[in-house]
Amino acid sequence: MEESLPIEMHREIKGKIETHVRVPLDTPYDVSLAYIPGVAEACLEIKSNRNKSFSMTRRWNTVAIVSNGTSVLELGDTGPAASMPLLEGKAAVLKAFGGVDAVPLCIDCKDAASLTGIVASLEYGFGGFMLEGISAPECYAVEKELKNRCAVPVFNDSRDGTAVAVLAALKNSLKLAEKSLKDAKIVISGCGAAGTAVAEMLLKAGVRDIVMCDKTGVMLERRAAGNPVLQELFRKTNPRGIRGKIKASLKGADVFIGLSAANVITADDVASMAEKPVVFAMANPVPEILAENAQKGGAFIYATGRSDRPNQISSILVFPGLLRGTMDAKAKEINDRMLFAAADALAEAVDEEELSPENILPFPCDPVSRQELYGRVADAVRAAAVASGASTQEDLRQPAQQ
Amino acid sequence: MEESLPIEMHREIKGKIETHVRVPLDTPYDVSLAYIPGVAEACLEIKSNRNKSFSMTRRWNTVAIVSNGTSVLELGDTGPAASMPLLEGKAAVLKAFGGVDAVPLCIDCKDAASLTGIVASLEYGFGGFMLEGISAPECYAVEKELKNRCAVPVFNDSRDGTAVAVLAALKNSLKLAEKSLKDAKIVISGCGAAGTAVAEMLLKAGVRDIVMCDKTGVMLERRAAGNPVLQELFRKTNPRGIRGKIKASLKGADVFIGLSAANVITADDVASMAEKPVVFAMANPVPEILAENAQKGGAFIYATGRSDRPNQISSILVFPGLLRGTMDAKAKEINDRMLFAAADALAEAVDEEELSPENILPFPCDPVSRQELYGRVADAVRAAAVASGASTQEDLRQPAQQ
Repeated sequence: MEESLPIEMHREIKGKIETHVRVPLDTPYDVSLAYIPGVAEACLEIKSNRNKSFSMTRRWNTVAIVSNGTSVLELGDTGPAASMPLLEGKAAVLKAFGGVDAVPLCIDCKDAASLTGIVASLEYGFGGFMLEGISAPECYAVEKELKNRCAVPVFNDSRDGTAVAVLAALKNSLKLAEKSLKDAKIVISGCGAAGTAVAEMLLKAGVRDIVMCDKTGVMLERRAAGNPVLQELFRKTNPRGIRGKIKASLKGADVFIGLSAANVITADDVASMAEKPVVFAMANPVPEILAENAQKGGAFIYATGRSDRPNQISSILVFPGLLRGTMDAKAKEINDRMLFAAADALAEAVDEEELSPENILPFPCDPVSRQELYGRVADAVRAAAVASGASTQEDLRQPAQQ
Repeated sequence: MEESLPIEMHREIKGKIETHVRVPLDTPYDVSLAYIPGVAEACLEIKSNRNKSFSMTRRWNTVAIVSNGTSVLELGDTGPAASMPLLEGKAAVLKAFGGVDAVPLCIDCKDAASLTGIVASLEYGFGGFMLEGISAPECYAVEKELKNRCAVPVFNDSRDGTAVAVLAALKNSLKLAEKSLKDAKIVISGCGAAGTAVAEMLLKAGVRDIVMCDKTGVMLERRAAGNPVLQELFRKTNPRGIRGKIKASLKGADVFIGLSAANVITADDVASMAEKPVVFAMANPVPEILAENAQKGGAFIYATGRSDRPNQISSILVFPGLLRGTMDAKAKEINDRMLFAAADALAEAVDEEELSPENILPFPCDPVSRQELYGRVADAVRAAAVASGASTQEDLRQPAQQ
């Protein structure tokens, strides 16, 4: 496999996940237990108490990964069928790294209300929903309404997964720069699903000075029209009332967080930032500023979303452990305390003595450290779910069976 | 496991299927191929040609097993969550016996049109749909409309799977009784999803004299009101204009097929049938007539739906091979030729010299014969799909990769 190109691998493997049978079906007795007539008793038990489906079926460990294909990676609206390679990849990572079973669902529906209805109707077969590749602003409405309607957790990885990873990276970066969350001046480039989620989480974490920018510059009120998430952020950000291009917002800023597009800032912009500038240039595959230019501008810390460089900030660090902990707690939701617990566990997964400007986060794919990383995140999230009352588990002493 | 009760097994195993990862994810390179950024190329290829999802993802081998829980086994309307043990069992059997990946979906929707819309919206992630446990008459409309809207096959196992198994059993029974399909007088007890499907298939197979009965007796025109499937059958059956209780219809009949309820016929009824009476009493768990009563009445052949007796007539003999062949042919539908091919392959799977009144069908769970049985059915269905133009496979020489 080492030699393949991605497209060849996908052609050869013909699907990155499959169904695996967990029961013996070797004898007629086996079949009568696991199929007809044996299932009837289990069906009846769930009929009399719907929550028994969490113990009598795989629901306790299974999430649906849902996309309508309207915003797949940087490829835009690919249609639902074309989201499947991403969904399968995510399902494979979720199982391999977090032990959570995942079912990819490509839904042919662009309307937010209809999409919500379809996903909500599938709730009784799943222990949670993971939204993926749904364009903004529809994704906000879908997520919000699903959270209202469903008794199982709803997670938007492009938003919450990214935000948790950024918060962890930011905490460790500010520690190295000897600055604090509450005094840091932060510029976020990108007002889409990820950028807005990062801004919301940083505000909740205590950041007081965020300036949101898009390709036209600092976010203006009229650009927030018709988008309640942006309207809310417009009110809560830019306390110094900065106007103009992104360049203007960067002068004296401590941190740049890019979740936008290639090459939107320059070495001069970085040079204009405060001392020890922190630059997270996460646009994929080409970041907001290349490493050499960030270096030229004197970046103290430079991180990207890419897996082939140090300091990868990616939700892959987050979602396997976060969902493992959520499922273990049988949590009815993923609340802020659980997200913050995940961010802290992720930040603390880098030992004090190993923390450096080139090593602000664990390396997600290291097979040795990954078990420990995801275990730590899962434990923290599970504890936070219990402490915050999100857990519905009857017997927390019983370890998850995978 | 030999000692468990079904309910204990279901509690212990906590889910009969799970997600299995088919790609290595051991190194950062592995992850970059199977997840981000590697998936982007595969997504783009499918974006430019939607059918590529059959070769670049698991769609080619994956069916969704869909239920709204309105008619689960003999338990009636259990709600969607309670259908899951059955769906998981079916998925496990489908994978273990037919090599087909299956995703159970419990849908919280009783309205036929809305249910159709939900299922149709999921088409781009699946190579086919299997409907299960949806009550009549809604299941007819859902199946018909889905077949109109979807480019992948739609299969209702309680209908088509049962009908294929009955046709195969009937062919072998009539061979032993030295009678013919076209001259046989057949009584069907049960006008639900299964009973009507069996009647339809037998008519297509050349049977000319079918009398349909329900618990009130021979089907009357007014009972068909508002049910187009029953109306159609009312016109095509009962050529001799029999009226009255089921008893009246059985006088001189060659075959009784029960898909109804416990104890609806007696030993005297069987005694009133033609020579060498064939009795298929498939109500579960208690058949339309018990073995000892059928014997008392002189039954030449007695078969049930139960796995603990000889002559089990069950769709478990059919759906794993039928769907394997359908997926191998990349068939866009499951047409009558494919169903007849499955019935013939199933009937012929009992060797001439082994065929006897106690052995009219293969034993479904025999681990030795089952490979051969399902292989035969799959090959026959695949060939029928190609011959009938239902196959869309570009390269039929390429064997299925499982």
